[in-house]
Amino acid sequence: MEDHIRFDAEACTLLLLDQRKLPLIEETFACRTVEDVVFALQTMVVRGAPAIGVSAAYGCRIALRQAMAAGAYWRNELERLLSMLAQARPTAVNLAWAVGVMREAGAGIQDPRELGEVWLALAMKIHAEDIAMNKAMGRFGGALLADGDTVMTHCNAGALATAGYGTALGVIRGAVDMGKKISVIANETRPFLQGARLTAYELHKDGIPVTVACDNACSLLMKRGLVDKVVVGADRIVANGDVANKIGTSGVAILARHYGIPFYVAAPSSTFDLATPDGSLIPIEDRTPLEVTHVGDTRITPEGVPVFNYAFDVTDHSLITGIITERGVLSPPYTSSIAEIIGQERRP
Amino acid sequence: MEDHIRFDAEACTLLLLDQRKLPLIEETFACRTVEDVVFALQTMVVRGAPAIGVSAAYGCRIALRQAMAAGAYWRNELERLLSMLAQARPTAVNLAWAVGVMREAGAGIQDPRELGEVWLALAMKIHAEDIAMNKAMGRFGGALLADGDTVMTHCNAGALATAGYGTALGVIRGAVDMGKKISVIANETRPFLQGARLTAYELHKDGIPVTVACDNACSLLMKRGLVDKVVVGADRIVANGDVANKIGTSGVAILARHYGIPFYVAAPSSTFDLATPDGSLIPIEDRTPLEVTHVGDTRITPEGVPVFNYAFDVTDHSLITGIITERGVLSPPYTSSIAEIIGQERRP
Repeated sequence: MEDHIRFDAEACTLLLLDQRKLPLIEETFACRTVEDVVFALQTMVVRGAPAIGVSAAYGCRIALRQAMAAGAYWRNELERLLSMLAQARPTAVNLAWAVGVMREAGAGIQDPRELGEVWLALAMKIHAEDIAMNKAMGRFGGALLADGDTVMTHCNAGALATAGYGTALGVIRGAVDMGKKISVIANETRPFLQGARLTAYELHKDGIPVTVACDNACSLLMKRGLVDKVVVGADRIVANGDVANKIGTSGVAILARHYGIPFYVAAPSSTFDLATPDGSLIPIEDRTPLEVTHVGDTRITPEGVPVFNYAFDVTDHSLITGIITERGVLSPPYTSSIAEIIGQERRP
Repeated sequence: MEDHIRFDAEACTLLLLDQRKLPLIEETFACRTVEDVVFALQTMVVRGAPAIGVSAAYGCRIALRQAMAAGAYWRNELERLLSMLAQARPTAVNLAWAVGVMREAGAGIQDPRELGEVWLALAMKIHAEDIAMNKAMGRFGGALLADGDTVMTHCNAGALATAGYGTALGVIRGAVDMGKKISVIANETRPFLQGARLTAYELHKDGIPVTVACDNACSLLMKRGLVDKVVVGADRIVANGDVANKIGTSGVAILARHYGIPFYVAAPSSTFDLATPDGSLIPIEDRTPLEVTHVGDTRITPEGVPVFNYAFDVTDHSLITGIITERGVLSPPYTSSIAEIIGQERRP
């Protein structure tokens, strides 16, 4: 599952495994223009904060090729395309981070051909580093899980949400790689069903035992003692340790606290946004009602009834047992552990 | 919406609005035999504890007609059919309650024709009383809601879950009937989507403003101050005030407590099971995986991955602000308020 994001350098085309069609259909979606990349991000052909970052890095390379058509005005056109790309989705900070890193690396380069080479190399480096970071998180986080644990996870913070291996699922894979027997409960994660569709798909493919549960079953399963730990990913972690992640995450964290179950977040340092002091300031994406009103071709709500479709929520830092990063596991108080271990250098 | 359960006495046939097909298709499902009634209960053509009770009462009348085919052995055959009916679903106590009430009323009657008349009259009385009880609950519960309140509800405890008017939605209708402006947030209630399909359908039809939210949005909506009160129904309330209700209800109650939002349960006295001391002893129905793996014709989980499908959970009495019944609103401590106001007379 480390090849769901590929870049064809010759054709300057980003090739994505179309996650909208999983688990039933495995199909490639080709992005030849920045508009294609923005479409893929917005409709969730590719999703998951780190995977969004890696895709956006290749998207910058595509933007450059596309901007060349503007001749002498290529710099202006490139700027326009990069802005469009950076704003494709509002909540995950990795998107702005990746475009920021690419911009910075290209700042002094006048020759577009040279810039193309620098950017391709940097995008590939971001891609490779993401997998390496996930494996490091897997080692740090895997040590926190005990042999025989059942781990609940929400949404998909797996290989499919990253360049490969995964953040939350990387922690599970890390424990499995250490020889520990781990079972997973995947919350189905309405409305987009990333848990039922994607987490179940990739763990089942890897032979890691996984059972899907409706999001509503969370409290019952915890009460029955079927959940030893919770591990989730993150779309943005701010300076005080508040975590934006898939809608429903904060509810799982509150239930875990109620039942005395440890709740961990796994995310690379690129997910930290130290410029934002607390979670109340994180923009929450409000997506199309269609994701709630329909599942596949089946309409489930009556015509004319409005719906809410906030895609993320913010989990208060006070509910988080530890934050697993590629640099180590952060403990409360997060304001100091984040400043110490993550520092200020990677904010967008 | 008071005619979704009808009984054609001439044809001895129970006519149910088929709730599996709502909100898109309005179709009648006819039950001519006890097997038809059991099928309707088990597949949720009709569902909701009070509606199950009313349907089961008519089901007893159908059982009697059917048992007559056994000639001299009609009593044995009737007993077999009533047992089958009473065991159709395990969690809602109203089912066993209704069959128990019918059995008791028929105990001394030797003439099947006389029994048929007594049972038809009693089933119609249970039917009519259910609506009257809901309206009483609406008056008691409606007084608890303030003008302008937004009420969150889980599953469907509405007209469709009862003989009409509803328990939780009866409380909302009661407040509206008092001239209060009430808005509703209907949790979609996976897996069977009673909120998205049924609660949205009946409130929208009545012109009461309703917005559907994924179950995952509950924490965010509460945190944003969009929920003033929570009102839900119940499938069984035991002696200490623990409440069995649709899967996910206990999670909503824990979140409501976390955010300081009042959490009310509305249920008629027939929902109380005083023979059971606490919620840990309530049997929890485990339903077909198909409800989780598929929505309509769309498969959402990969083949070969197991799923959980517990249909109910138990909300601890400590999380409940008040229990609204047709006899008044019960307050903690429930052991004494239940004993005082509900008494022992209506246990199955």
